Amino acid sequence: MYRSHTCGELNASHINTEVTLSGWVQKSRDKGFIVWVDLRDRYGITQLVFDEERTPKEMMDRAQKLGREFVIQVKGTVIERASKNPNMATGDIELLVTELTILNESLLPPFTIEDKTDGGEDLRMKYRYLDIRRNPVKNNLVFRHKVTQQVRNFLSNEGFIEVETPYLIKSTPEGARDFVVPSRMNEGQFYALPQSPQTFKQLLMVGGMDKYFQIVKCFRDEDLRADRQPEFTQIDCEMAFVEQEDILNVFEGLTRHLLKEVNGVEIEKFPRMLYDDAMRLYGNDKPDIRFGMEFGELNEVAQHKDFGVFNSAELVVGIAVPGGNAYTRKEIDKLIDWVKRPQVGALGMVYSRCNDDGTFKSSVDKFFDQEDLAKWADVTGAKPGDLICILSGDKNKVRAQLSALRMELAERLGLRKPNEFAPLWVMDFPLLELDEETGRYHAMHHPFTSPKPGQIELLDTNPGDVKANAYDLVLNGNEIGGGSIRIHDKETQGIMLKHLGFSKEEAKAQFGFLMDAFEYGAPPHGGLAFGLDRLVAILGGQETIRDFIAFPKNNSGRDVMIDAPAAIDEQQLKELNLKLDLK
Amino acid sequence: MYRSHTCGELNASHINTEVTLSGWVQKSRDKGFIVWVDLRDRYGITQLVFDEERTPKEMMDRAQKLGREFVIQVKGTVIERASKNPNMATGDIELLVTELTILNESLLPPFTIEDKTDGGEDLRMKYRYLDIRRNPVKNNLVFRHKVTQQVRNFLSNEGFIEVETPYLIKSTPEGARDFVVPSRMNEGQFYALPQSPQTFKQLLMVGGMDKYFQIVKCFRDEDLRADRQPEFTQIDCEMAFVEQEDILNVFEGLTRHLLKEVNGVEIEKFPRMLYDDAMRLYGNDKPDIRFGMEFGELNEVAQHKDFGVFNSAELVVGIAVPGGNAYTRKEIDKLIDWVKRPQVGALGMVYSRCNDDGTFKSSVDKFFDQEDLAKWADVTGAKPGDLICILSGDKNKVRAQLSALRMELAERLGLRKPNEFAPLWVMDFPLLELDEETGRYHAMHHPFTSPKPGQIELLDTNPGDVKANAYDLVLNGNEIGGGSIRIHDKETQGIMLKHLGFSKEEAKAQFGFLMDAFEYGAPPHGGLAFGLDRLVAILGGQETIRDFIAFPKNNSGRDVMIDAPAAIDEQQLKELNLKLDLK
Repeated sequence: MYRSHTCGELNASHINTEVTLSGWVQKSRDKGFIVWVDLRDRYGITQLVFDEERTPKEMMDRAQKLGREFVIQVKGTVIERASKNPNMATGDIELLVTELTILNESLLPPFTIEDKTDGGEDLRMKYRYLDIRRNPVKNNLVFRHKVTQQVRNFLSNEGFIEVETPYLIKSTPEGARDFVVPSRMNEGQFYALPQSPQTFKQLLMVGGMDKYFQIVKCFRDEDLRADRQPEFTQIDCEMAFVEQEDILNVFEGLTRHLLKEVNGVEIEKFPRMLYDDAMRLYGNDKPDIRFGMEFGELNEVAQHKDFGVFNSAELVVGIAVPGGNAYTRKEIDKLIDWVKRPQVGALGMVYSRCNDDGTFKSSVDKFFDQEDLAKWADVTGAKPGDLICILSGDKNKVRAQLSALRMELAERLGLRKPNEFAPLWVMDFPLLELDEETGRYHAMHHPFTSPKPGQIELLDTNPGDVKANAYDLVLNGNEIGGGSIRIHDKETQGIMLKHLGFSKEEAKAQFGFLMDAFEYGAPPHGGLAFGLDRLVAILGGQETIRDFIAFPKNNSGRDVMIDAPAAIDEQQLKELNLKLDLK
Repeated sequence: MYRSHTCGELNASHINTEVTLSGWVQKSRDKGFIVWVDLRDRYGITQLVFDEERTPKEMMDRAQKLGREFVIQVKGTVIERASKNPNMATGDIELLVTELTILNESLLPPFTIEDKTDGGEDLRMKYRYLDIRRNPVKNNLVFRHKVTQQVRNFLSNEGFIEVETPYLIKSTPEGARDFVVPSRMNEGQFYALPQSPQTFKQLLMVGGMDKYFQIVKCFRDEDLRADRQPEFTQIDCEMAFVEQEDILNVFEGLTRHLLKEVNGVEIEKFPRMLYDDAMRLYGNDKPDIRFGMEFGELNEVAQHKDFGVFNSAELVVGIAVPGGNAYTRKEIDKLIDWVKRPQVGALGMVYSRCNDDGTFKSSVDKFFDQEDLAKWADVTGAKPGDLICILSGDKNKVRAQLSALRMELAERLGLRKPNEFAPLWVMDFPLLELDEETGRYHAMHHPFTSPKPGQIELLDTNPGDVKANAYDLVLNGNEIGGGSIRIHDKETQGIMLKHLGFSKEEAKAQFGFLMDAFEYGAPPHGGLAFGLDRLVAILGGQETIRDFIAFPKNNSGRDVMIDAPAAIDEQQLKELNLKLDLK
């Protein structure tokens, strides 16, 4: 038996007990006549004490040589600590060691195993197994476990069945790039790793499994933007014989359950917003509604004056920055530089200061009088002391730009509080999205999403206007999940695929098995999927998913710890009937 | 709202209630003036009734045209059934339909959706979504969910943390063949899919996560024997600061918990058997101990007579078949043919009948007298009325052959009862296994398994005799799990890898990151993994894992439903820097 207790559980009630502990040497203070060692395991830290009065010389010598991260086992007596540490769970006691066994030595770790480490991102990733010893990483992994257990228990109690769908499936050209897996037994053929179990969960609905879920890895071979991973985890769900309202209720219930159990936050009813309104009010389909700063569209009150920039713009739109009139001219110039950065891409920014006396001072006083500016304040909801920031130009672009500015300013103003939770359903997404490059429409969610009743006729004339039975769950400005009511009849599915540019042959080759399945009594169904990595990060009050993944990959898709991917044997390639064809 | 109740829940207490149901038409009986329809969903079947007295003509017409597997929604009144069906949960009532909506039509399914279907294996796999509508398959999937939930809850309550390890890892030459995944971003390099998360769970131990588990997919690109899948699911576990006994306790507890919760069977303490004893008594490292028929080794009592076959054999070994003396000569001849089949490979079989009067009649009466045969009966534990079957030859081969015969006979005698559960720990496996072809030793479990204390010196002289801290959990003659105490110091790991034929460079290239990790304070650790597919099948009283997998692959590794693997685009290959190199 390596231990009788953990390093996190001993307290005053254990005084005079003989115990055995095992763990890592967090640090050691050697005063010559006395040595204190902080012994750490997953559960906490216990202070060990060796002193020349009570400790045999031989053990004292060994204690003095203990290095950081040595693995040791100690037996001893719990004693009261002379100077108690009220910030530590075990701060009332220490262990007077009577037996010391070194289980394993350690080289000096390449960074400190402390909450605030001196290790940079790269070093921490290379030695991730040491990084995991640190509380912030370890706690995130434990937190992730807690969340997934809650998800599973909630859904199981609601009658959902977790069904494992296959990982070795078939490549489809729709959507992101697949990772493929050459088959040795089926010469020249490839499996693909699933981007999601979408078709399988629909087949399970056809199979009568009317409440399905799965916490499942998914794979996308995309060029990795910051904080994207080639493999990621989804909470994948599907239900049959349901309407949109049934699905929203279940998953609002799940999210409410998580917020309550994991964060201790009770939220009554989640607000809902139409996609069109989200774009109009926040320039974004995943608005952070923890704070206001809603967009005010100013075309009516700012156009038809002599200011050409506004007059030629498709959209003139502003936000009121609370207390922003306190900004100096220099600070505002910096803000203008910020929106002009290539990542944001605005050409410039107009502003209007809202003075405490009710007057205004704008950057375009030449063209607009106080009455005009008062209207701007009215539309943007600005109050004395605020600053109105205005962008103009192409509608889609300018909304994205102002949304970026809104988020940046909220961040600076401390309005994005990590422990405040503001969920929001965004409803009625467009069915199709125009690819500006190819001029071709593609499915905004995926090709199985159903159009709103009665809108299928619009596909021919105004494809961009067709709305879908599609919804996203947004939490604190992040999309944490999305789904839709699916098409369940072969005819509608055929029309959709035609509009997405699939020939009958392509459709048959790619989705034939699903369309076949729809011939045999497909029930009405729909579902949704949550991104687990992001959900856990946000519930954990953070935004970086990498910190919630045990062994993440870097931006080149590499695992720097195990040094993967790597070259493989000539023999392996041969068995797979492949040759490298390097550029 | 598509339904107010499911098709499995209505009973006499609902009589006169108005309800809405949705589901599939299981079957329909049309008597002209009355139509009964069995409506099915995941939860059961409810009988619908339409009759010309109470049903409008128009609805009656539509009811008469309902085909099998049509998806319909009905509203109606629950009424008492004239002729009750006590074998059916809803057998006391039927639904008098007042509204009928056809939600989707269905082609005639290619096989009947009944517990006993007319569909063959191939057809059922091609239309797996229809197969899943059948109770036997559906119930298996629900059962699997129940088992995994119990596993997760038990381990979570024991303080285990489920940690997701990566799927895109690195290929290792040890063990079975890897599936590989070409990397687009890292030209000419490949990921591998994990055969198990072995190294990652050991790294988690180094990281201080002292109780880890994961229910996880694993991948092996092996030529598929019957009932093997290229992707399979493991309950993977690891613990730090533990001895073998701690691990056995936890997972015996888990298995006991499952047997109790899932099967209602209480088993006090699992017996343990040394590997050497299992081989000696059952010729097998996973003996089915639901029944006896233990081996009796007969060298001492059967050699040194004039029977050359026995005299030249390394091992002469027999079993007593209960009641086997009732077999006719013809039946025994058939049994001899059975052991001579190439799958078993025996050259012949000697037998001795144990007559009710205490005399014996053997096939080798020329060489052995009654006194000899009495000794055989004594050693094999044969009683009057039994038949002693004896094989001889090379020890390893003959044990395997007699084990096959023992299992076959037990099957015929009905001794392998699916609802009886006999777990068994098999302990102290050999560390190394000789590959007869290459003459090289390889790790029986994996290269991280620790030898028994004090045995490492034997590696140089008698490598085949070294025993490992390795154990398997056997249930009803199937290995459902196995594990070991790992090597946790770099030195021992180095010795092991050397004996497994790795050069220092190879060892560094393949396991360098693990050996590096062991430099930074690796704790003593060990673990085990359960094969979930098999565990679930056995708990479910069956032996075919395919019936417990939603979308299994066939023996060529193909998913015949989605027709994968398949060819991929030239463009995809090009992006991956690959060319096909077909034979």
